Amino acid sequence: MPEQIIILGSTGSIGKSTCEVIAQHPEEFRVIALAAGTNADEMIRQVKQFKPKLVSMATQAAAEQVKKEVGGDTKVLWGEEALLEVATHPDGTYVVSALVGSRGLPPTLAAIQAGKKIGLANKETLVTAGHIVTQEAQKANVPLIPIDSEHSAIFQCLNGERKQDVGRILLTASGGSFRDWSREQLANATVEQALKHPNWSMGAKITIDSATLMNKGLEVIEAHWLFQLPYDLINVIIHPQSIVHSMVEFKDGAVMAQLGTPDMKVPIQYALSYPKRLPLDTPALDLVTLSRLDFRAPDFERFPCLKLAYQAGKAGGSMPTVLNAANEVAVEHFLQGNCSFLLIEEIIERVLNEHVSVSNPSLQEIQAADQWARNYAHQCV
Amino acid sequence: MPEQIIILGSTGSIGKSTCEVIAQHPEEFRVIALAAGTNADEMIRQVKQFKPKLVSMATQAAAEQVKKEVGGDTKVLWGEEALLEVATHPDGTYVVSALVGSRGLPPTLAAIQAGKKIGLANKETLVTAGHIVTQEAQKANVPLIPIDSEHSAIFQCLNGERKQDVGRILLTASGGSFRDWSREQLANATVEQALKHPNWSMGAKITIDSATLMNKGLEVIEAHWLFQLPYDLINVIIHPQSIVHSMVEFKDGAVMAQLGTPDMKVPIQYALSYPKRLPLDTPALDLVTLSRLDFRAPDFERFPCLKLAYQAGKAGGSMPTVLNAANEVAVEHFLQGNCSFLLIEEIIERVLNEHVSVSNPSLQEIQAADQWARNYAHQCV
Repeated sequence: MPEQIIILGSTGSIGKSTCEVIAQHPEEFRVIALAAGTNADEMIRQVKQFKPKLVSMATQAAAEQVKKEVGGDTKVLWGEEALLEVATHPDGTYVVSALVGSRGLPPTLAAIQAGKKIGLANKETLVTAGHIVTQEAQKANVPLIPIDSEHSAIFQCLNGERKQDVGRILLTASGGSFRDWSREQLANATVEQALKHPNWSMGAKITIDSATLMNKGLEVIEAHWLFQLPYDLINVIIHPQSIVHSMVEFKDGAVMAQLGTPDMKVPIQYALSYPKRLPLDTPALDLVTLSRLDFRAPDFERFPCLKLAYQAGKAGGSMPTVLNAANEVAVEHFLQGNCSFLLIEEIIERVLNEHVSVSNPSLQEIQAADQWARNYAHQCV
Repeated sequence: MPEQIIILGSTGSIGKSTCEVIAQHPEEFRVIALAAGTNADEMIRQVKQFKPKLVSMATQAAAEQVKKEVGGDTKVLWGEEALLEVATHPDGTYVVSALVGSRGLPPTLAAIQAGKKIGLANKETLVTAGHIVTQEAQKANVPLIPIDSEHSAIFQCLNGERKQDVGRILLTASGGSFRDWSREQLANATVEQALKHPNWSMGAKITIDSATLMNKGLEVIEAHWLFQLPYDLINVIIHPQSIVHSMVEFKDGAVMAQLGTPDMKVPIQYALSYPKRLPLDTPALDLVTLSRLDFRAPDFERFPCLKLAYQAGKAGGSMPTVLNAANEVAVEHFLQGNCSFLLIEEIIERVLNEHVSVSNPSLQEIQAADQWARNYAHQCV
C-alpha cells in the first residue's frame, strides 16, 4: 500500500519538490492532504494533479480562490484550525513538515501526537521546541526523518550504525553567497547579492540565512536534537561545492559521508522512501568533471551568526527560540530593505543579550519568548 | 565472549596490524592460532605476546627456530597440512586471511568450510576462485568481510542498504608511485622508485601492484565477487590523497563514501568488530588541513594492467587466475631486477593471450591454470 502523505507547506520550494517526487512514484506515495499559505494558483494545480481529500490555506481569500477552481471531492478550509486538521487527517500515515518559520511547530506536534511518521524540513520545529518534539516523538514512537540535505546525509551515514559508536558530526556548509566577502564588503551587501546562492536554489529566507551562516547555526541546533549529541560533537566545515552533504566520524576513525549533486529531491525522496531507496531522475554525481572538493574551517569572526547559534544552543532553554525569532524578524527587515546585512547579526545579538532565558520551556513559554523576541527585534531596526 | 581469532599470515604487514588491533582490545579479541612463512623472529614475539594454542610456519627450519624459543603451551608445526590445521582450529571463530598470493586460497577455503567467519585480506582468494569461495561461503553461511581498505569502505557504505538499491561502485585508486609518470619515464622506472608509495605503507608485492594499477584491477575482480555486481557497475576513479577509500552510488543519486587517514588498522578492526565499531588509536581525519580532495579518471593507456584486469574479469573462467599468476611472476622478476617495469604488463598480456580459458573451473583446474601461467610467464622474461 502506498504511503499516505500529507504535505504542510506544499506550495513552497520543498513542498513543490515533494510533489515532484510523489508524482514520479505513484505506486509508492499518495497525497492525502495539503496545506499552504496564500499561493492559491499553485495549490489549484496541485489539487488538480493529486486530488487530495483535504486542503487548507492560510487565508479565507486564498481558500475561496482554490474552492472555486477545484471539484467537490477536495474539502478546502482555511486558518490555524484547518492546518491542524490537515496535519492530523486520519488517512495520512506520513507528514512532510515543510512550512517556513515557527508556524510549522503546532501542526508538526499535532501530527506527531496523531502517530504520523514525520519528514522534517521545518527546522524551527526542532530549534524552538527540540526538547518537546523529540520527547513527543519518542512517546508516540514515530520516527523524525530529516529532509534538510545535511541532516539527511547524517541520517544516511548513521544507517546500520550504533549510536554509541559515533564520534562527532561534521556538518558541511557551502558558505553561502558571501563566503569570500570581507566584513567591509558585507557592510554594503544588497538583497540581490545575498539571494544569489552559489549551489542551491531555495526560498528567500533560507538563502539569506545561508549568507549569514545562521542557516548552519540553526542546523547545528537541529542536529543536536535529531541526533541527541552535545554541541561540542557537532562541528561545521566549509565545503564550497556542496557535494559532500555532511559526514559522521566514528570512534574507530572512519568517516562516513553522503555526497551528491545538489538537488533537494534526493533527501526528500529518501525521507519518504526510507529505509528503501527508489530510482530518481537527478543528474549523477561526476567527481571526475568536478575534479576537486575543497574544505576549510568556518570563520566565526566574519560570520558571527554561527557563533551566536552555538551560544544559544548551548545555553538552551528559550534561547534558541529567541535566536530564531530575532533572526526571522531581522531577515524580513533585510529582505524589505529596512536594514543592512550586518544589522541582522547585531539585532540577533542584542535580542539574545536582553533575553532572560526560561529553562525547559513549555509550548506557551516558547510562544511567549518567540513573541517577545519578535517585538524586541522590530524595535532594534 | 571474545572473538577467537586465527591469523593466516600473521607476520606480514596486515598480520602485524591485526595483532596491534587485537592487543588494543583484549576484552573483544583473543588469538587462537597463527600461521606465517619464514619470519621466525616475528612469530616468536607474537607467540610470547598472545600465547596461541597452535602455530604453523612454512618451513621446518623456521618452525624449529620458533619451537626453541616458546613454551610448551603452543604447538608449533610446519608445512601445508599445518597451515590447514591452523585455518580450521576448532577453537577459532574468525579467520583473518592475510597470506600473500595464491597460497592463501586452500586454507581460506578450508576455514570457510569449517564455518569460520572470514576477514579477507588475501585478494587472490576471490580473484582466482571467486565463484567457488562465494558459493562455499553461502553454503556454510559464513560472512566474507573485506579487509582491503577499498572493499571495507564499500562494505561500510552498504551498511543498512538494500542490494537492489545499489547503482554502481566507485573504487578509488591513489594511482600509486607512478601516478604522474609518462610512458617514457615508466620505461626506466626502478624498483626503489616503484616501492615509494605516496600514501600507504604496505608489502613490496602490493606496492608494485599499486604502481602498475594491477592492484586496482585485482580489487575490481574482488569487488565483483564480494558484492556480486557486474563489471560495468564497478568503476575506478583516481584519488591521489587516498582519503576517500571508496564509494557506492545508489539508484536515487545518493553517493555514500567512507573516508579516513590511510591506516590499515581501521579496515582491519572494522572487519573484526563488525557490525560494531571500537575506539581506535589512529590519527583523526583533518579535512581542513588537507584542504582539498582531488579526483580524475584512470588512464587505461598509461596503465594497461587495469584494462587487462577488466578484460580478464569479464572473460571469467580461469582468466583471472592466469592474470594473477602471471602478475605474481612478473612482479617477482621486477623486484629481483630481472625485468623492466613495463615488461610486467607485457608478460601478463602475452600469458593471457596464450591462455585457453576454462569456464567455471574446479580448484584443480584453477591450480593447473595457475601453474601453467607461472611457467609461461617465467619463459617470457
